[in-house]
Amino acid sequence: MAPVGPHPAVADLRRAVREALADVPEQALVLTACSGGADSLALAAALAFVAPRMRLRAGLLTVDHQLQPGSAARAATVKDLATELGLAPAEVLTVTVGKEGGPEAAAREARYAALDEAAERLGAEAVLLGHTRDDQAETVLLGLARGSGPRSLSGMAARAGLYRRPLLGLPRQTTVAACEALGLTPWDDPHNEEVRFTRVRVRRTVLPVLEKELGPGVAEALARTAAMAREDADALDEWAESAFQNCALSDIGESVKLAVAEVEKLPVAVRRRVLRRAAIAAGCPSGALSATHVLAVDRLITHWRGQKAVDLPGGLSAVRRYGTLIFAISPIA
Amino acid sequence: MAPVGPHPAVADLRRAVREALADVPEQALVLTACSGGADSLALAAALAFVAPRMRLRAGLLTVDHQLQPGSAARAATVKDLATELGLAPAEVLTVTVGKEGGPEAAAREARYAALDEAAERLGAEAVLLGHTRDDQAETVLLGLARGSGPRSLSGMAARAGLYRRPLLGLPRQTTVAACEALGLTPWDDPHNEEVRFTRVRVRRTVLPVLEKELGPGVAEALARTAAMAREDADALDEWAESAFQNCALSDIGESVKLAVAEVEKLPVAVRRRVLRRAAIAAGCPSGALSATHVLAVDRLITHWRGQKAVDLPGGLSAVRRYGTLIFAISPIA
Repeated sequence: MAPVGPHPAVADLRRAVREALADVPEQALVLTACSGGADSLALAAALAFVAPRMRLRAGLLTVDHQLQPGSAARAATVKDLATELGLAPAEVLTVTVGKEGGPEAAAREARYAALDEAAERLGAEAVLLGHTRDDQAETVLLGLARGSGPRSLSGMAARAGLYRRPLLGLPRQTTVAACEALGLTPWDDPHNEEVRFTRVRVRRTVLPVLEKELGPGVAEALARTAAMAREDADALDEWAESAFQNCALSDIGESVKLAVAEVEKLPVAVRRRVLRRAAIAAGCPSGALSATHVLAVDRLITHWRGQKAVDLPGGLSAVRRYGTLIFAISPIA
Repeated sequence: MAPVGPHPAVADLRRAVREALADVPEQALVLTACSGGADSLALAAALAFVAPRMRLRAGLLTVDHQLQPGSAARAATVKDLATELGLAPAEVLTVTVGKEGGPEAAAREARYAALDEAAERLGAEAVLLGHTRDDQAETVLLGLARGSGPRSLSGMAARAGLYRRPLLGLPRQTTVAACEALGLTPWDDPHNEEVRFTRVRVRRTVLPVLEKELGPGVAEALARTAAMAREDADALDEWAESAFQNCALSDIGESVKLAVAEVEKLPVAVRRRVLRRAAIAAGCPSGALSATHVLAVDRLITHWRGQKAVDLPGGLSAVRRYGTLIFAISPIA
């Protein structure tokens, strides 16, 4: 007897896509981003299968980063495959990658800008991305190495704006198996072998060592940690926002003022978030505001001995006057 | 000219001990636990120097686990050294290590029981432990591999009950350098070389690979993550406790009842903590209550379609009746 139904890997992918699209209204357009690698190829095939059964329209976008010889031909191949799969529209988005922030960051920025533009132009309801549980584990480890706290352990969101990541719960191996079962030949991005990229080293060296020394299931544990860290960070941000509203004495003019008596009642995790929030509200550029800055302001609350103003990025400073903490443009010296 | 003042490593240790003891009243007794390894030996020397200058009494406890040949003689050597350093009382605590939970956990349990007993008997105000930043990084990695969420990333507390860990911010290397500078010869615990212990593999293989592939400073980043994760978890526990009080309809008798309308307003991270708290209040053994159990109860809130009761450990179940979630002993089937 011939086997009944799709290969288990194919079934897993289709289920994941179906669940991720459960709330999309009928006739809406869903796009999937596809590099031609196993992850995004398997995702495109799953979308092509699922979409008509959910009365959705489904298309594909592939980005030509113009970073490797033959990239235009490869993008054209992906586009042709999309048409074979029944995905329409299928478009090649050709981008020019800058230098800012290093090669990985610059390529990512150019890619998302092109996807954003195409999604808007085509009126898409959602854009699917093929990140798997392994990608999530790598992201968590990279965040951990930065040591910038639980938010950096949150990894990638299952949903963010138009973007959805249906495969975050599935191992990369499932996408490889699905491509095999469907007779699709994935493209192996040579960048995935370039050990000058930190992420590639995490994938090829760090995660395998962790799996070997700490036991299998580390990638799953990291992905689970990411999900919980994200929920925790969201809840604390919500608390900090309402605490900020409660502690703020006025936001008239250029300065933000907090009542010390209210701020000091808060648990430390919330208090530091409120101080950060206040500094940003006063005009601090959030990217330049470090944990060290926030800690210095916090000492005006917890270790008050009449210190002078704490300098903050963007020409601001925080100063305590009696029971009030004031974030404002520093007076010219 | 001869160098002035102590070696920088010695100075770092003394400063760390001084800061950790700032709130201890004069004449109080502070004990330090010492295996004879570099970490705890350097800590003992720092305490011996700092205590008289802070008008504190300082003693030492060393535990003989009776797991290795010659352990009694080694413990006696540590005790003699303590006396030379001026630490009194100095005691050897001889323990018998059981089997439960594996060799590491059983040794830890026996050790803390003996330290607790001695601290109480001697009337100590604090017991110092020599864990360093590297130990903290190892603990975070072990927690990460379990994937049981941000609380398991919190590592070890700087203070917990009587115990204080003054060296959590210092690298292990500082304690090695301090011992060298002071002419103290640390004992190298052969257990630290036994790769059958997960922690030893983390120390010898995992952390070095992380440092090599992700850059130096990983141990520091992990320790920083631990501190932030602990603060976040504390704040969320505080929120969950007050939310639980607010959602609980009654705790009369055996059952705990929550108002669904209140519970569903909470962010997911707090909601799940409230559900966990309610199950434990109703009598669920906390060790047996897994994230999967809590998730199943949560679906009675978020995916309500008239499900039957969710079984919980300890013979309890959670059931939704109209607008109320009831945690109670399951009726006999």
